[in-house]
Amino acid sequence: MSNSKQVFRSGIYKDYFAQGIKTGNTLHLAGQVGIDTEGNIPESIADQTKLAYDNIQQVLSEFNATMENIVDETIFVTDMSDTMKNVENVFSVRAQAYGAIPEVSQTLVQVVALVSPKLKIEIKCIAHL
Amino acid sequence: MSNSKQVFRSGIYKDYFAQGIKTGNTLHLAGQVGIDTEGNIPESIADQTKLAYDNIQQVLSEFNATMENIVDETIFVTDMSDTMKNVENVFSVRAQAYGAIPEVSQTLVQVVALVSPKLKIEIKCIAHL
Amino acid sequence: MSNSKQVFRSGIYKDYFAQGIKTGNTLHLAGQVGIDTEGNIPESIADQTKLAYDNIQQVLSEFNATMENIVDETIFVTDMSDTMKNVENVFSVRAQAYGAIPEVSQTLVQVVALVSPKLKIEIKCIAHL
Repeated sequence: MSNSKQVFRSGIYKDYFAQGIKTGNTLHLAGQVGIDTEGNIPESIADQTKLAYDNIQQVLSEFNATMENIVDETIFVTDMSDTMKNVENVFSVRAQAYGAIPEVSQTLVQVVALVSPKLKIEIKCIAHL
Repeated sequence: MSNSKQVFRSGIYKDYFAQGIKTGNTLHLAGQVGIDTEGNIPESIADQTKLAYDNIQQVLSEFNATMENIVDETIFVTDMSDTMKNVENVFSVRAQAYGAIPEVSQTLVQVVALVSPKLKIEIKCIAHL
Repeated sequence: MSNSKQVFRSGIYKDYFAQGIKTGNTLHLAGQVGIDTEGNIPESIADQTKLAYDNIQQVLSEFNATMENIVDETIFVTDMSDTMKNVENVFSVRAQAYGAIPEVSQTLVQVVALVSPKLKIEIKCIAHL
């Protein structure tokens, strides 16, 4: 029997999975994407990255956590060459989200597709609280 | 020197990796797929999903754990559009495995291929005991 | 506010992410690839695998850890059929890195691409110290 789970649900998937779940000192976040609260998906990967980090910060705030708590990122993109062409913008948006040099390990891979065809980036984070 | 690892090995890969490994309160499971004990792989993604969760439950049971202990799922599929076409069946099978609204974060991406060309879904879980 | 993070940075990405980060008893490693210290990438997947494990061992050593501490591996390859054709060499290199039957869970998927087009394998590890 599991216990002491702290769960945050939100949005259209709330009956299927949690956006964040804390057990012990570890917070697992669902992969976050560049969709705003009205369901809009901007075209550029930098704008999607900005929204994805906004969504990550919203989940963190539900657990009284901040970007400083993130320890690991797995980043799934759908076009590595487009990602690299825009890497300065993408990493600039990320640097602003972190507000400092990120103390986080990272893995970046190109997959075939994310849940919606318009999505170009999904960021899966683990945080330590 | 690592210590206090509790390891469960099984099947044809048992000399290469563990199906489950517990350290502290965390159980890492190897990615589970839709192969039955005789090596058969059903065609539909829903049937493969059912078998994958059966295999997850078998690993959990070796650690006296249940689906309630799962905190994070990364789901790799080989055809997102086929997954979405069958999403009601896939999530119905998953709901039955969990037996309740899953308290788990989730990330779903489409990869190019899994270990066998017939496989359509692989589910990688982390559990908290 | 996060605390007690122990961080190891190295190489050209050191301003963007850490190669290893320890919180509590958990060490997250950035995905490691087959690049040597001069930036060379060998052609064969077995040689890249050897280098990736060399890089993993270097990160572990910064935390006074060894391969025995690894509990989970996610392996991203860019060509599953080439991986399987060379699986004996790849797993032989891995067995030498571990020095014993690995006590580690594993997930292996084929993605579209890694950060550099020459890369054939990336290994993301979690260790317990």
